[in-house]
Formats: sequence, C-alpha cells, structure tokens
Amino acid sequence: MQNWLKCDDSPDNLVISSRIRLARNIKNEPFPDSLDANKAREIVNHVEDAFFTSSHINNEFKSIHLWDYDKIYNKSFIEKHLVSNKLIDNKDKSAFIVDSNETVSIMINEEDHIRLQCISSGFNLEEILNYSNKFDDLLEEKIEYAFDEKLGYLTACPTNVGTGLRASVMIHLPVLTMNNQINGVLNALTQVGMTIRGLYGEGSGAYGNLYQISNQTTLGISEEDILSNLKAVVNQLINQEKLSREQALNKYNYELEDKIFRSLGILKSARIMDSKECLKLLSDVRMGVEMGIIKEINKNLLNDLLVNTQSATLSIIYENKLNEKDLNIKRADYIRKKLN
Amino acid sequence: MQNWLKCDDSPDNLVISSRIRLARNIKNEPFPDSLDANKAREIVNHVEDAFFTSSHINNEFKSIHLWDYDKIYNKSFIEKHLVSNKLIDNKDKSAFIVDSNETVSIMINEEDHIRLQCISSGFNLEEILNYSNKFDDLLEEKIEYAFDEKLGYLTACPTNVGTGLRASVMIHLPVLTMNNQINGVLNALTQVGMTIRGLYGEGSGAYGNLYQISNQTTLGISEEDILSNLKAVVNQLINQEKLSREQALNKYNYELEDKIFRSLGILKSARIMDSKECLKLLSDVRMGVEMGIIKEINKNLLNDLLVNTQSATLSIIYENKLNEKDLNIKRADYIRKKLN
Repeated sequence: MQNWLKCDDSPDNLVISSRIRLARNIKNEPFPDSLDANKAREIVNHVEDAFFTSSHINNEFKSIHLWDYDKIYNKSFIEKHLVSNKLIDNKDKSAFIVDSNETVSIMINEEDHIRLQCISSGFNLEEILNYSNKFDDLLEEKIEYAFDEKLGYLTACPTNVGTGLRASVMIHLPVLTMNNQINGVLNALTQVGMTIRGLYGEGSGAYGNLYQISNQTTLGISEEDILSNLKAVVNQLINQEKLSREQALNKYNYELEDKIFRSLGILKSARIMDSKECLKLLSDVRMGVEMGIIKEINKNLLNDLLVNTQSATLSIIYENKLNEKDLNIKRADYIRKKLN
Repeated sequence: MQNWLKCDDSPDNLVISSRIRLARNIKNEPFPDSLDANKAREIVNHVEDAFFTSSHINNEFKSIHLWDYDKIYNKSFIEKHLVSNKLIDNKDKSAFIVDSNETVSIMINEEDHIRLQCISSGFNLEEILNYSNKFDDLLEEKIEYAFDEKLGYLTACPTNVGTGLRASVMIHLPVLTMNNQINGVLNALTQVGMTIRGLYGEGSGAYGNLYQISNQTTLGISEEDILSNLKAVVNQLINQEKLSREQALNKYNYELEDKIFRSLGILKSARIMDSKECLKLLSDVRMGVEMGIIKEINKNLLNDLLVNTQSATLSIIYENKLNEKDLNIKRADYIRKKLN
C-alpha cells in the first residue's frame, strides 16, 4: 500500500486517493460519546492490546494518544487525512494506531470505538478493502464486536449500521466546477445514494476543486456492491470531467493555458499566500499536469504542496506556532523552494 | 543624445525621459489647420529643403510623409513618442524629419508649421535644449519664423506664444499613485504652472504610473527659468516618491515584495495579456528594479517592453494586422521571450 501523497500512476488520472473505512464497536460497551475519559482510555488500552499482541503486527505500527499532543499536531493529523475531525473533538479519550507508511489508521473512540481506515493513492478500492479486512480480522480475533445477525455491525449512528463500510474516492474536478456543472452532478449523486464532500470531510468547502465521493448507505447492500456502485459513479465523473476539459480546450485553448501558467507563475513568485488561494492555484497547476500542458511538475510534488501548505502541518515544518501573517509568508517560502 | 528607450543611468533614477519641444511657424503662412493638403505639402517641402540643404546635416536623417504610411505605422510613431496625436490627425498634410537614433523629430504641420522635438533618456533638460537649439538655428538660417519682438514666437495656440518651448519629464510614481497622494500633487503642480499628463499625452490616463510633467506657460518667462522650475518640481516629486517608498518598505515590506514578484511571475507566465494589465505589471517590476528588489532585470528591457507591447508597434513586430485577441496572445509571447 502506498501513502496517498505518493503518486506513481499516469498524470491524467484524476483520482488522488481512495479510502476504506470500517466502523466497529466492542460488544456490551457504551459508545464513546457516553464514556468518561477513564473508561474511554481503558477502551484504548483494550484495542491496543488486541492489536499489538497479534503475531501479524510488526514494529512499523505505533499508537498515538491524542491527549499527549497539542492542538497543532492534532490538526496536522487531520490535514494528512490520518484522522477525522471527530477524533480530535474527543482528544481527551481518543487515540489512533498508525503504520510508518501512514496508510492504515485505526481510530479509537471516534464516534465508534473503532474506525479502521486505509487510504492510498490511486483508484484501487478492492485492494484497499482487502488490506483493511486483514486488520479487521486481526482485531476480531481478540475483540468481540457488537454485531447483530440481521442488521450487521452495530454503530453509534444508524447510517453506519450494516457493513460499517464507507468507501470514498478523492477526485479533482476543476472544469465541472468552473462550468457550474458540479451542482447538477451533486444532486444526481445524492439520488443514487452517494455523498459528496470537500477536501476535509463534512462541512469543508471543495477547496482546490477536490471532492470526496462516498457511499451514503451501508445497510442492506453488500461490500462488493458498495464498491462497484462507487466505482461506476467515479468513472462517470471522470468521463464527464474529461469531456468538459476537451470542450474547454477546443473553445478556450489560450485562456485555459493562460490560467494554468499564470497560477504556476504566481506560485513560483509570491511572497505571501493564504491557504485558500494556494489550493486554488494548485488546482490550476494540477489540471495543467493532468492535461499534459505542464510537463516539468509531477503529482507527488503537488500532493506534497497540497498537504504541507496546510496551516498546522506548515507550522510543524517551520517548528513554530505562527500567526496568520507569518504562516502566509512561510507558505509562500515553502512553495517557492519546492517549485524553483 | 541617447534614444529614450536606452537607459544607462543608475537603476534608482525615477526619470524615464526628458523632452524639449519648440513650436515655430513660417512667417506670413496660415497655420496648418487653415491649409489645404496641397498647400500644406508645399510647407513640408519648404521645411525639408531648409533642413536637408544644411551642411550640418548628414544622412542619418530622413523625412517621413505620413500620407505614405498606413494607420498602424502612424500609431506606432506615437507609441515610440516620435510624433504627437495631432500630427497623425493631420496625416494627409503632415510629415516629420527624424534621425536614425530617434532622438530628434521635426514635426511639420502639426498644430504649428514646425514642432521641433528632442527626446532622450534620463534627466538632462539643458543638454537636450542645447541640442534642440542647434536644429532650431539651422532651420532659422533658411526659414523666416513668425516672430514678434514683444511676444516672441507666434503660434497657432496662444498657450505656446513666447518661447514656444515646452519642456517635459516622464517620471515613474507608483507609490504616490497607490497611496492616492498623486491627486494632491497634481493640484499643487497646476498651481505652480505645471501640467501633468499620462504616458501618451493629453487625455491619456496615467497607465503604468508614468507621468509627464511639463511647463504650462511659455510667455513672459525665459527658457532657463522654464527649465529650472521644471527641474525643481521634478526633483521634489522624486523626493516625495522616494520617501513614500521608504515608508511603504518599512510598513509593508512583504506585501510590497509580494506585489512586485507576483507581477514579474505573471509577466513571465501569462499566455494572454491586454495592454492595460501589461503597463500595470511593468510598473510593479520597474518599481522593484528601482528599489533594488529585482536585480536581474535592467531598465532597457523594461523600456523595450513598455513600447514594443503597445498595440501598433507589436503588430508591426509580428508583421500582421492582428485582432485584439491575437494581439493579447502575441503581447504575452513577446514578454515571455524577452523575460525568460
């Protein structure tokens, strides 16, 4: 499995990353929101024991207790897509087990006791599901899950009952967004049981024209069907976006190139840059790379810039708590160094 | 004398060019606006004869009859500051004598029969006046000027009666403009008998933050006083602008650098650029060069870009009558080639 920020597929692949998340709970234990910190930390211990005593687990894994980290580190975990906002909200009682590659993250005491997440670059949901299932099986050897023969896995929120599976794909849709076609797409997706969210999950805007498409329902549908439905939808989105790009290229060739190269020029030159502008410009450059208009930049670099220019991660890189103005200066510095 | 586009002075000199213009008319001939084309062309012949038969004149000079050139060439003469708009308005009856260096331009049948102009880079009004006087003397050997002992040289418009001298200096005032201090400056200048105009004379906006400062009155004041007043005013403007720059640099160091380097980045990257944006960005870069923030670009290059990105001159470079969209594409091409 490859970290989602590393990318070795062809430049014209519009999928940035694929993710599988399994929601699991321990039988006869109250859900995390009903636990006090002490009891919750016992759950953390319980899951850690189950995991680390397994003979299949090597020393590439570690457990991170959020209560040991300050706000900025916790925020950086979100920015790297290692954990959810909700896990950070529960920081006094939550933890996550992560591998050195940062593809597996077993969140403990998020909304459910266990949220097993695998995230990887590219568009390879089955592979990631298989990988996730290995860890799920391994935990199940030691932990008795809350499970109902008829309903399936029981979860804190009814929307996750059943398979407990959420599969999601992050995809780059700049031209559908530019053309305002994205709202129509959004409505259509909702009607076929899909959810569309921004770069940083629920409630986050689609900054950088990056969208996470995921299944809404987990009950009464098999894991295979969840994946194949999502794949069909994402493939359709890819085709729509590519068609829109071709049309744009035929009609506005120079304007499109102008937009792309100006954005690259600004990224290479600016001395102050806020996060929103950065995501917007990176999206233009990514589009240029995907369309073969920009050849000298690879997507690894764009992914690096995508995450490392996020405020908390950037602060950690510069080993300092920075105010907003300094952050904007350091962001521009970081980008210039990487691009020039 | 050096062509105004060539610049060998120090980068922090805010003066782009200095210009002297002498208005002269031939005794007992109606002013150009009262002449039909035939009669006007006789005046052209008369001035050409007077000029080219002089023993002081070598073959570096030629006469250009505007009626032989199409609109785009004539417009390019304006863009290079070789002639005035008014000369082009009279294109059926007007001409100008110019040296290969393009520092001297003797316009024939502008508002007056003769408008002798010398323009050069830098801030050297006396030198240019001396140079202009040589050509004026040379013409006066053969032509009897309309001259009144009491009033001085007689001209079509009373504002030029007297010395017939207009001295002007083109100066770059981006920070006074940015701070909105320029309007106060403008009012003050008017009160001391100065006129302030844009890059392309009366009625042209101050695109590119370039201003032409010139004397308003020519009557009852000696040539020396005209020059020394103008010099005093320009020196004061230079000091004001430099003070404002220092203050801006102290207060908004990063913001100023950001603006300058972004503008340079866009100039190096854009695929489409209109003339207004081009002048704005060039002004930012010029400010960067003048302030020592940009070191790898010299002012010759900026002057080249200033004039050669003007629509008519650009069309001539690309040997084509271009529509606006193509012009904007070729402008961006030209700039990229020169800057990269």
